[in-house]
Amino acid sequence: MPLKSLIALSAVATALLSAGLALAQEPIQPIALVQDINLAQVELGKKLFFDPRLSKSGFISCNSCHNMSMGGSDNLKTSIGHNWQQGPINAPTVLNSSMNVAQFWDGRAADLQEQAGGPIANPGEMASTHALAIDVLASIPQYRIEFNQVFGTGEIDIDKVTLAIAEFEKTLVTPNSRFDRWLMGEPVITEQELAGYELFKSSGCVVCHNGPAVGGTSFQKMGIVKPYQTENKAEGLAGVTGKDVDRFKFKVPTLRNVELTYPYFHDGASDTLAEAVDIMGRLQLGRTFTDEENAMVVSFLKTLTGDQPSFALPILPPSTDQTVRPTPFE
Amino acid sequence: MPLKSLIALSAVATALLSAGLALAQEPIQPIALVQDINLAQVELGKKLFFDPRLSKSGFISCNSCHNMSMGGSDNLKTSIGHNWQQGPINAPTVLNSSMNVAQFWDGRAADLQEQAGGPIANPGEMASTHALAIDVLASIPQYRIEFNQVFGTGEIDIDKVTLAIAEFEKTLVTPNSRFDRWLMGEPVITEQELAGYELFKSSGCVVCHNGPAVGGTSFQKMGIVKPYQTENKAEGLAGVTGKDVDRFKFKVPTLRNVELTYPYFHDGASDTLAEAVDIMGRLQLGRTFTDEENAMVVSFLKTLTGDQPSFALPILPPSTDQTVRPTPFE
Repeated sequence: MPLKSLIALSAVATALLSAGLALAQEPIQPIALVQDINLAQVELGKKLFFDPRLSKSGFISCNSCHNMSMGGSDNLKTSIGHNWQQGPINAPTVLNSSMNVAQFWDGRAADLQEQAGGPIANPGEMASTHALAIDVLASIPQYRIEFNQVFGTGEIDIDKVTLAIAEFEKTLVTPNSRFDRWLMGEPVITEQELAGYELFKSSGCVVCHNGPAVGGTSFQKMGIVKPYQTENKAEGLAGVTGKDVDRFKFKVPTLRNVELTYPYFHDGASDTLAEAVDIMGRLQLGRTFTDEENAMVVSFLKTLTGDQPSFALPILPPSTDQTVRPTPFE
Repeated sequence: MPLKSLIALSAVATALLSAGLALAQEPIQPIALVQDINLAQVELGKKLFFDPRLSKSGFISCNSCHNMSMGGSDNLKTSIGHNWQQGPINAPTVLNSSMNVAQFWDGRAADLQEQAGGPIANPGEMASTHALAIDVLASIPQYRIEFNQVFGTGEIDIDKVTLAIAEFEKTLVTPNSRFDRWLMGEPVITEQELAGYELFKSSGCVVCHNGPAVGGTSFQKMGIVKPYQTENKAEGLAGVTGKDVDRFKFKVPTLRNVELTYPYFHDGASDTLAEAVDIMGRLQLGRTFTDEENAMVVSFLKTLTGDQPSFALPILPPSTDQTVRPTPFE
């Protein structure tokens, strides 16, 4: 090998090594690729995620509010449920949600499987029942066959349904954001973005927004330094623990793909990242960011948009003459 | 080449030739593959088809009622529109709709492009306005760039939007059904299915349900021999022509993928193919099919399910700080 090439190689190795060292010291880690997964469950879960027959109306699927075309969210302040009911809280993104310490803003579901059963039977959301949803699925031979292939039995129950949905959701990670590529040594972020990251760390944002998901690992009070003004009725963690000290504590949302998951906060009250950063600074950190600082942080946050999950829209098996029909208007 | 191979080859050639001759005599033709298409328009149109920001609520897209996971329909009697309004008529499938003589049940739109503009601005469906929808799209740089790439100008207007949606819809054909493969010489349908097809022809169904789409080419009165009983208020073609003779004339629906596009008729009143075939026989042909005949025709109809369009779910460009927000509850 010519000397020039050896020197070049050595420079690359040194850069990667120092990137590796730097990486270990950063409070945010790159999103790991999905490795251990049950692919058969994923493919079944993908169908179920897109199947509106899990709702009473036959119109609302998991994807309605966790829209995979729109950052795994619905981009609405609060969601639209059965009979156009206004939901009580902003729909969190399903992207990277497997990294959350618990599910829902108040953490009332321990994991993705437990979460998946909630909206199906929530009268304000999909408004079905687990019994009805299972009845519908069990009337469809292609589903019975696929459940049999996946679970070794065609007996469908809600645990198998939610397990498959959760397994699909575990694949919804967004690696290769520019920020992650920078963490791994590629010079793909600008000076402004880097300055935004430094400010994000030095001003204390990173205390809560850390780890691979840049959040999702703890519950924190909304309005630490100054109270948060909202008409939203959500009580947060207190609704789960019954403790007054947990009032207004919410799961810290992931900031991955935050460019796509507007509007922000549990009440969806902030339409823009600039406003959200301003409010967070003042209410959580007691710090008013200048316009320039705000723009720096926002530019950093936009480097957190990763590869969106890409897959073929699933084709659903048709209902049969025996399938209970949806009743949207009853 | 050995003699045996020559004989085998000759047999195949004879079979294909006779299939070709038979094909020419059949009233139903195979679905042709899409050939001349503007791929850039298709990819843009696919995004628009899935973009709920074309609706006032930010919740309803073209795909909501023409769901590509469910035969290009919503499988509801009548659709759910803005504010959970009950639609006046069954949503026809978008699959193979480019072959229709006109669009909508009453033919009030001449072609797919004209159709696409309707639901966006219909207060009972997506409830937006063309001006608002364009305003939203024009506020999104990635859309402006893509319109520029496709049309040579970033100036977005409703004609470009509907042209792109229509071009995408032209790709939504479903070739390679078992029936088409049989038409082209493959022995892939059963004796019962073939007998059903013969009965479909001999009893007169094929007078209206013919051509590549097995329908879609004419308007016919619903209830020729006996009147059709329905509470549905739709007047059909008369609403377009103003002629009393056109009352209750509807576009003959395609029977392609009819296994997937339940419920049936303009009022969505028939949940099953067996019921639909029975009603058609009695009301349109003055003939009561026996249970055995009915089952034969239904088995034939199920051979018309073709390859469903397969594509990656599009990822939509995010709104910006300037984008007008949806107002689902105002």
